[in-house]
Amino acid sequence: MSETADITGFRPAWLRDDELDQARAWLPVLYVEAVPVRVDQYGQVNQVGLLLRARPDGSISRAAVSGRVLHSERIRQALLRHLEKDLGPVALPRLPADLSPFTVVEYFPDPQVTGFHDPRQHAVALAYVVPVDGDASPSQDTLDLTWMTPAEAVSPGVAAEMTSGHDRLIRLAMAHVGALP
Amino acid sequence: MSETADITGFRPAWLRDDELDQARAWLPVLYVEAVPVRVDQYGQVNQVGLLLRARPDGSISRAAVSGRVLHSERIRQALLRHLEKDLGPVALPRLPADLSPFTVVEYFPDPQVTGFHDPRQHAVALAYVVPVDGDASPSQDTLDLTWMTPAEAVSPGVAAEMTSGHDRLIRLAMAHVGALP
Amino acid sequence: MSETADITGFRPAWLRDDELDQARAWLPVLYVEAVPVRVDQYGQVNQVGLLLRARPDGSISRAAVSGRVLHSERIRQALLRHLEKDLGPVALPRLPADLSPFTVVEYFPDPQVTGFHDPRQHAVALAYVVPVDGDASPSQDTLDLTWMTPAEAVSPGVAAEMTSGHDRLIRLAMAHVGALP
Amino acid sequence: MSETADITGFRPAWLRDDELDQARAWLPVLYVEAVPVRVDQYGQVNQVGLLLRARPDGSISRAAVSGRVLHSERIRQALLRHLEKDLGPVALPRLPADLSPFTVVEYFPDPQVTGFHDPRQHAVALAYVVPVDGDASPSQDTLDLTWMTPAEAVSPGVAAEMTSGHDRLIRLAMAHVGALP
Repeated sequence: MSETADITGFRPAWLRDDELDQARAWLPVLYVEAVPVRVDQYGQVNQVGLLLRARPDGSISRAAVSGRVLHSERIRQALLRHLEKDLGPVALPRLPADLSPFTVVEYFPDPQVTGFHDPRQHAVALAYVVPVDGDASPSQDTLDLTWMTPAEAVSPGVAAEMTSGHDRLIRLAMAHVGALP
Repeated sequence: MSETADITGFRPAWLRDDELDQARAWLPVLYVEAVPVRVDQYGQVNQVGLLLRARPDGSISRAAVSGRVLHSERIRQALLRHLEKDLGPVALPRLPADLSPFTVVEYFPDPQVTGFHDPRQHAVALAYVVPVDGDASPSQDTLDLTWMTPAEAVSPGVAAEMTSGHDRLIRLAMAHVGALP
Repeated sequence: MSETADITGFRPAWLRDDELDQARAWLPVLYVEAVPVRVDQYGQVNQVGLLLRARPDGSISRAAVSGRVLHSERIRQALLRHLEKDLGPVALPRLPADLSPFTVVEYFPDPQVTGFHDPRQHAVALAYVVPVDGDASPSQDTLDLTWMTPAEAVSPGVAAEMTSGHDRLIRLAMAHVGALP
Repeated sequence: MSETADITGFRPAWLRDDELDQARAWLPVLYVEAVPVRVDQYGQVNQVGLLLRARPDGSISRAAVSGRVLHSERIRQALLRHLEKDLGPVALPRLPADLSPFTVVEYFPDPQVTGFHDPRQHAVALAYVVPVDGDASPSQDTLDLTWMTPAEAVSPGVAAEMTSGHDRLIRLAMAHVGALP
């Protein structure tokens, strides 16, 4: 990850599990989330990519790209790192020129607070819609990557396959790009 | 321009000069404006493209891409049409997935109203920052296209070469992408 | 409307019906639309205001505030003028400091183009969410103004009472403020 | 702070100094920043409020409202808490209905990384422009609060009185609301 040094001069710091547990008890944890999309030459979104993941309890769910911003890591680095980790090295994600997220998602251990739920921690995620030009292929922990139309992605059937509020995240993303039916 | 039919099913209507003059007396005229940029793999803007144009009075000025939205034309069509007209057919502009402009520019014949000035008309422009991937080459009415860093593009020297408030438009665009010094 | 002179130095121009008809044949017509909301001290939207209107065919429908931007009129003037016309003079709308609309709505006579439909014209609307602090009361052409929760405002029952795509506009507005369920 | 319980059901967690030091070594620390403004009835910004603060080294500088988001605290709570702490209890800040920040500011101990500098930590701040309606009065650590026009707030003289990159933050804020000269 030599690019990391390029833009910060620092290398991100990884934490041991016990350190991360302690940190989670003290601070909200910063995340980035990306909804991968395919766009036409006019920039219109015609497909949405959803990851298929195995969860710790053995169940399977669909989700957007999501991951932690490390200490000393820039937000753009974290976005690219997680996109490459989940979509593979030749997905060619088009990171936004403007770093303002389309929404800020607040996850709490208590699912009642915002509807966005993370049993492990209080996390705050900056969420982006990211057009992907290349060949995305699921990698690492991802079982599969499915492309579907915006209408399919927000349909009740697909929404039921998402957890933690990611179905709502997808609806907000599609609204942001004017593709919510 | 077969793409036009693709997304609206209509062909844009061109007006005769006298019709346009009459229309300008009756309604604000809708424009799109695009600030072409080059971005790195992280989406960070590292270059801004400014057009060099001859103005009706013979003077020369720098400007962003700008043009009218025609009757029956979609905004995305108008954006692509003007980008291709000014940057050539292989510029490969990346139109935004989200159609919300970073600013709305109000041009008036009276330069005191907003500081954005158009002696011909009351025009309202939706302004976008558009990354360009391909080879941009000036075409039609454009004398030249110059790429410069964001810091150069907002420097007093370059600003002085812009008219109608386009120097301010460039500053707003650079601020939007976090590249205003 | 002395405020008008305050910010532009011009008075907006009204058109005769035949002039407006001609103008509509030549140019897209610029509109502003506002979704009135009530917010709590944290800025969270807890109510949405929908107008009840009689349509030319005698049917009744719910809608957001909407109206044309006149020649020589600034966008902020048009927004305030239409909000006061529809919500009364003591509604105290809080116009946004940032003039970027949350979405740009393209209305076409052909309902297939974008799903937003205006049989009279090609119209382009800049849409805003506008918190309202005072006492809103329906005025002029408005039969009633109903406040409801975001969940009610996007429910299928209420959506069915909207036409022209305003049900989708309300969903996009609620997504923008994070209040789409 | 009974409002806290209202929207999360949790009480924010305060850290001891040694805990905060340890947490800062492990994670980026989440902040909110607010640029207080006065707006006219059209929503146009006509004044910007800058705090005057004594810094640890005894020097004096101007700054926007800024503070940490605590564990279990919602972003809107943190925003209101810091606005009330710095502007007093009757400032009546108008928190945004939309939680997307106008920019995301990345502070690093190394001032070369982004130009935004915090010697203590890697901090990521969500930045908002917040209209203030009531009587703002400096409180707690704030020596003074000065209202000035947007042009004054971005003038070289005032910019020189800001540190950490807050002069740039103010320029980005003024650009966002179209008030950057």
